[in-house]
Amino acid sequence: MGAGSLQLRLGELATRLGVAFHGDPERTLERVATLTQADERSVSFLANPKYRRHLQETRAGAVVLSPTHLEGCPTAALLTADPQLTFARVVRLLYPEPEVPAGRHPSAVVAESARVHPSAWIGPTVVIEDEAEIGARVFVGPGCVIGKGCVIGEDSRLVARVTLCWGTLVGRRALIQPGAVIGGDGFGFARDGERWLRIPQIGRVRLGDDVEVGANTTIDRGALEETWIADGVKLDNLIQIGHNVTVGENTAMAACSGISGSTRIGRNCTIGGAVGTAGHLEIADNVHFTGMAMVTRSVTEPGVYSSGIPAMPNGEWRKTVARIRRLDEMERRIKALEEGLGSVREQAAMRPPVGYG
Amino acid sequence: MGAGSLQLRLGELATRLGVAFHGDPERTLERVATLTQADERSVSFLANPKYRRHLQETRAGAVVLSPTHLEGCPTAALLTADPQLTFARVVRLLYPEPEVPAGRHPSAVVAESARVHPSAWIGPTVVIEDEAEIGARVFVGPGCVIGKGCVIGEDSRLVARVTLCWGTLVGRRALIQPGAVIGGDGFGFARDGERWLRIPQIGRVRLGDDVEVGANTTIDRGALEETWIADGVKLDNLIQIGHNVTVGENTAMAACSGISGSTRIGRNCTIGGAVGTAGHLEIADNVHFTGMAMVTRSVTEPGVYSSGIPAMPNGEWRKTVARIRRLDEMERRIKALEEGLGSVREQAAMRPPVGYG
Amino acid sequence: MGAGSLQLRLGELATRLGVAFHGDPERTLERVATLTQADERSVSFLANPKYRRHLQETRAGAVVLSPTHLEGCPTAALLTADPQLTFARVVRLLYPEPEVPAGRHPSAVVAESARVHPSAWIGPTVVIEDEAEIGARVFVGPGCVIGKGCVIGEDSRLVARVTLCWGTLVGRRALIQPGAVIGGDGFGFARDGERWLRIPQIGRVRLGDDVEVGANTTIDRGALEETWIADGVKLDNLIQIGHNVTVGENTAMAACSGISGSTRIGRNCTIGGAVGTAGHLEIADNVHFTGMAMVTRSVTEPGVYSSGIPAMPNGEWRKTVARIRRLDEMERRIKALEEGLGSVREQAAMRPPVGYG
Repeated sequence: MGAGSLQLRLGELATRLGVAFHGDPERTLERVATLTQADERSVSFLANPKYRRHLQETRAGAVVLSPTHLEGCPTAALLTADPQLTFARVVRLLYPEPEVPAGRHPSAVVAESARVHPSAWIGPTVVIEDEAEIGARVFVGPGCVIGKGCVIGEDSRLVARVTLCWGTLVGRRALIQPGAVIGGDGFGFARDGERWLRIPQIGRVRLGDDVEVGANTTIDRGALEETWIADGVKLDNLIQIGHNVTVGENTAMAACSGISGSTRIGRNCTIGGAVGTAGHLEIADNVHFTGMAMVTRSVTEPGVYSSGIPAMPNGEWRKTVARIRRLDEMERRIKALEEGLGSVREQAAMRPPVGYG
Repeated sequence: MGAGSLQLRLGELATRLGVAFHGDPERTLERVATLTQADERSVSFLANPKYRRHLQETRAGAVVLSPTHLEGCPTAALLTADPQLTFARVVRLLYPEPEVPAGRHPSAVVAESARVHPSAWIGPTVVIEDEAEIGARVFVGPGCVIGKGCVIGEDSRLVARVTLCWGTLVGRRALIQPGAVIGGDGFGFARDGERWLRIPQIGRVRLGDDVEVGANTTIDRGALEETWIADGVKLDNLIQIGHNVTVGENTAMAACSGISGSTRIGRNCTIGGAVGTAGHLEIADNVHFTGMAMVTRSVTEPGVYSSGIPAMPNGEWRKTVARIRRLDEMERRIKALEEGLGSVREQAAMRPPVGYG
Repeated sequence: MGAGSLQLRLGELATRLGVAFHGDPERTLERVATLTQADERSVSFLANPKYRRHLQETRAGAVVLSPTHLEGCPTAALLTADPQLTFARVVRLLYPEPEVPAGRHPSAVVAESARVHPSAWIGPTVVIEDEAEIGARVFVGPGCVIGKGCVIGEDSRLVARVTLCWGTLVGRRALIQPGAVIGGDGFGFARDGERWLRIPQIGRVRLGDDVEVGANTTIDRGALEETWIADGVKLDNLIQIGHNVTVGENTAMAACSGISGSTRIGRNCTIGGAVGTAGHLEIADNVHFTGMAMVTRSVTEPGVYSSGIPAMPNGEWRKTVARIRRLDEMERRIKALEEGLGSVREQAAMRPPVGYG
């Protein structure tokens, strides 16, 4: 890794992106930056219209934007219907992943029976155990531990200090941040009187292709079967994935969330930060949980789901909690009112109105 | 570690488990699996009656079940009053922990003054500091760091990349998953004007026997006294235990929970996932918190405690939050109704019913 | 690290603290302890008046307390208006940080182009990449990984197994606990049909002076600009700081909290445990969130903010959740009552009271 960048000319950049452009095709670009921080060699972007005022003052060399905003653009422009996606592509073009240096550092400890592709890089102080398989162009950064029988697909990158416990399967083009632990034992015990008897966890973890795993995230191995993270899933930092969980294709999960054992999450879901789910649930495809949602039941319909009460001034919160605790009393008072009103009406009904008396 | 398994014959297995069986005692068994995935050499189990329909179709070589389900069992059976516990024992018999290979890897860095039992294994790139003591048959996996003066009791297993900070005491038969940090400094500061002055944390962490610690879990050392995790406690992944906390015997805590400093948790408690407790609380024995509970006060009575509102469709949630914010208004309206109804009744009382007029 | 302590005489201790004392100035003190556990060579303290009864029975050699409590003190006393702060200073005097041993362990892997100050210590199995700069008296504990181009200011201490990803800037006197990951990639993707396209994260993380980072805490690098943790910020364990976040001076954050991307937190804030904030918020100076607060909006006024309903017995909780779900029905019933009462009153108004009829 590193922030090394290339130089590209505007015309060439537009060609590679497959988009139209305005401005001098020979203009040199070599950085990306926000509208306010960009200089003449920077590409910037406008995705959210509320930043349009920054557009007018930008010193960027070129701006990625939609044709509707071209009029206010004081510099060269790359035109696209989806500025965020096109800008992501610009960043990828200007800041390519560094080449993986084939070979291994002399401080790495690699078991004889491990199969390491000659184009892979095994970094300093890495430990690779028996029968592990490391694919082509895989980058295993410093301090990683690759357990017995693990398999890592080609072009995957383990940044540093990643632990794969025995038997973990990682697909192609994975990106795994430091401190992640994949394949630790699930939390499985049987009650034995007052004590807990550990149930050996013999399933594995399998990650599909294009999976990303954040820093210090933990994914437990299955109890009997696999824990399965499907193709294209993106997991942020400090997430817990319990044993036997499956996460469907292209689902993205923000930091600090926890998925309890044996829960199945569908495809194309988004899980906000610090969401918690109970175990053994089924979450449908295209379900979206907002941050800190507490998910206690299966969700069968696509849609957005939420829970929690947003923070408020402490005094107000104390009163709100007290009122919530008085809800039963409020219900009783409403019931009493209904009965009281009913009896008043009955009495009234027994008494003919004036004029009929 | 690894998923290597033994072969056992049905009769021998039943003898070792101390249970009755049905079927050919010579049948060979060497795996465990779910009812639906089992083959003729697999032992499976039926604990939850709702899976009984899977029993009828299983191809398992033998099934652990209660005598009440024997009738529907199409294969050999191991009979027990507690199928989950017996099945846990089957898994432990078929998948024994691998023997700890005595010795140390040449890449390990072991201080001269450390005392390592000759039957212990010190893995690659491990660092063991001065005066640490490593007991008999202890497994210290790759990348672990064992600080000055730490003591690890016999038969304990540190899977990989575990950090024990200076002076940490680990009992016998511990199982500590990768990335756990035990004995980091507690979060202790005194206000010094606008700044914070660190209070050196000089207490230790002590783990009893048979304690398990999950991946990337952190247990802080005491400020002055010990942080104490009693015998048989099981901690899942990504848990935070603050300084001076005590956790009583056989308490189990699910992932992502956080126990603030100086809180004392009793024996035989279960703490669901992502539970948070305030500091300086006393939680009695046999207390159970459901997932995401917010514990702000001491709990003196055994029982189950909960908080939080389960996730609901976002539109409904927005209305619910708005209504909760209107609770004071609702109370005022109820009060106004009570007063209004009262005055209507008073008026009615002043007016004699028809017939008396 | 370690718990080694010095010996000081009472008079000398008082002089160094700049406080008055009562008792024999020659009394030797060499430890600190709570009032109940102290012995004659221990210094203890009384900050919270509710522990005054322990003062009467203490066997401490000296007690730090406010002059108002001197009368009940059975032993020597160090007098101060702020016992907690003065005691913190006592602990720092009696338990000084060990000297950093200049040099590097032979198992460390240090790039040729890295610049390491001769007074710094590079511990066993440390990896330091190209062009990193390690300042004077910096302690880099076992298993740390210091990425390309990182800079660590003088007198900082990385306890063990810390990862600094490329380009991370650490100020002076930092204290970083084991397992922390600073500078991992932020969670930044653009939608590309059903798939997610990673946006390379090219910003850095910058920590000011006197910053502390807890065990297994993760701080993501900026997307384009910096993630910035200002001077004097204290972060507890297992915290997530998203990309582009800024945390203002002297703000302290308790364990398990998560700050979503691009949020800006002010100075002198305190963030309780397991607080979650949405992204792109602005939190003013001197804002305090209590534990588990869910922060969905910017906060412009100083003060204390809270959310969440404290745990209650499970049966009561079930009823409370049901009642909250019936709030719309309650509002309808109140409305019906108001209408009903209104029409009763109208009828009554149409009917003159007895005597006028």
